[in-house]
Amino acid sequence: MAPLPHSPRAPHAATEPAEARAAFRTGLSEPTAGWCDGRAQANLIAVPEDWAYDVLLFAQRNPLPCPVLDVTDPGVTTTPLAPGADLRTDLPRYRVWRDGRVVAEPTDVTDVWRDDLVAFLIGCSFTFEGALREAGVPLRHVEQGRNVSMYLTGRQCRPAGRLHGPLVVSMRPVPAELVGTARRLTARMPAVHGAPVHCGDPAALGIADLGAPDFGDAVQAHPGDMPVFWACGVTPQAALMASDPPFALTHAPGHMFVTDALDSAYRMP
Amino acid sequence: MAPLPHSPRAPHAATEPAEARAAFRTGLSEPTAGWCDGRAQANLIAVPEDWAYDVLLFAQRNPLPCPVLDVTDPGVTTTPLAPGADLRTDLPRYRVWRDGRVVAEPTDVTDVWRDDLVAFLIGCSFTFEGALREAGVPLRHVEQGRNVSMYLTGRQCRPAGRLHGPLVVSMRPVPAELVGTARRLTARMPAVHGAPVHCGDPAALGIADLGAPDFGDAVQAHPGDMPVFWACGVTPQAALMASDPPFALTHAPGHMFVTDALDSAYRMP
Repeated sequence: MAPLPHSPRAPHAATEPAEARAAFRTGLSEPTAGWCDGRAQANLIAVPEDWAYDVLLFAQRNPLPCPVLDVTDPGVTTTPLAPGADLRTDLPRYRVWRDGRVVAEPTDVTDVWRDDLVAFLIGCSFTFEGALREAGVPLRHVEQGRNVSMYLTGRQCRPAGRLHGPLVVSMRPVPAELVGTARRLTARMPAVHGAPVHCGDPAALGIADLGAPDFGDAVQAHPGDMPVFWACGVTPQAALMASDPPFALTHAPGHMFVTDALDSAYRMP
Repeated sequence: MAPLPHSPRAPHAATEPAEARAAFRTGLSEPTAGWCDGRAQANLIAVPEDWAYDVLLFAQRNPLPCPVLDVTDPGVTTTPLAPGADLRTDLPRYRVWRDGRVVAEPTDVTDVWRDDLVAFLIGCSFTFEGALREAGVPLRHVEQGRNVSMYLTGRQCRPAGRLHGPLVVSMRPVPAELVGTARRLTARMPAVHGAPVHCGDPAALGIADLGAPDFGDAVQAHPGDMPVFWACGVTPQAALMASDPPFALTHAPGHMFVTDALDSAYRMP
């Protein structure tokens, strides 16, 4: 189905995933919303082997924010989701975490990667944006050339071992008459966060000010838009902040790993 | 919707889950197909804590046979899926495993339970049988008062750590004209094995003789039935056989943990 006129494709929509990763590998750094139409994007969290069970159990207990797409064996820097990719270099920006704090945001983590790291690739809501756009749901952040807005909420995730922390959500302003469409389409994609966790009043999630996101950019709503909130793969980063593991690597919010996997592979029949 | 006449409800269809578990606790031991209509049933595998990551990763990498519904903390013998239940006593029959071999099949494992055990509850295809019956798909094993037929296949699961082994499937003979219905209904329930992995020729899965199942009972097909195969939660037991961990406890095939959770909780919208 051709995109509707009010939902233009982003500048990098037609880029091939391998091209995108090659550009990021050589230092290009920007949010990946709208990149590589039709291909799944993923959150990254890599932790030392002795924290891997906690992360995997946290994901199992919180499948809405943490749908696991792949887990590497310790020290492995590749994934079947993107043959030829290197997880240490192929994301546009990373975060290096020590004792629950971000100590650097480099575009390459080859120098700090460790042989005992286990990497988790977690579904990302950018993956369902193609389906929204094709159905005529405008993507305000893409139209405005911005990163999606993300917020810490007042809802706590179910803890797992040493990991605990709040749910993080992404927010998209959606014309009120299209909220039902957005809900129906995303409900069919549980591996990339599924249906919204909330529509409407941000206070219900403990969010004080939509104009001041905790991650990403503020995005301008149009008259008649309603804020729609989806569980977000930055949730494990909120758990790092709350739980202080000694070391971790993640993507920088909105700066995702672009895989070769098709969006449609994560759509229910 | 009322059951159609050719799909009678089983004798224990109207039993409440807590009643069923109380009966099993006092020693009743029979397969649970057809028990407690509308309630989810679960496979059990409990392993020492140092094997828990391997099991959880095996499940993550093989979600069709191993959809995880709950994971306990070490030593915990309860689950939110069935408040008041005790995982050591409330299943109709267990298997005790040492070094990859079944050494006992008791109806109670209180005496061999260990404080370092982590229990995994894994979705069971009995959970979608209510939906099949309501749609007029006959359940031959229930009609015949037998356990479902289960088979080791020639397909290998994706290994995880020290765990590897073949896919196990359950098989139901389905009238050819209802195979599409069965596929469509079960595809909507991925947490309890989802769509069939195969319909038709058993040899395509490496199964030599439908009359000689590896687990459960042989079930009589009717003229015009086609064998339909679903991924099965006995798959982790095949991995125990293949991978020889020192100790594990599981349910006996077909003798499931009956939870309070509604079938419908595992049905996609």
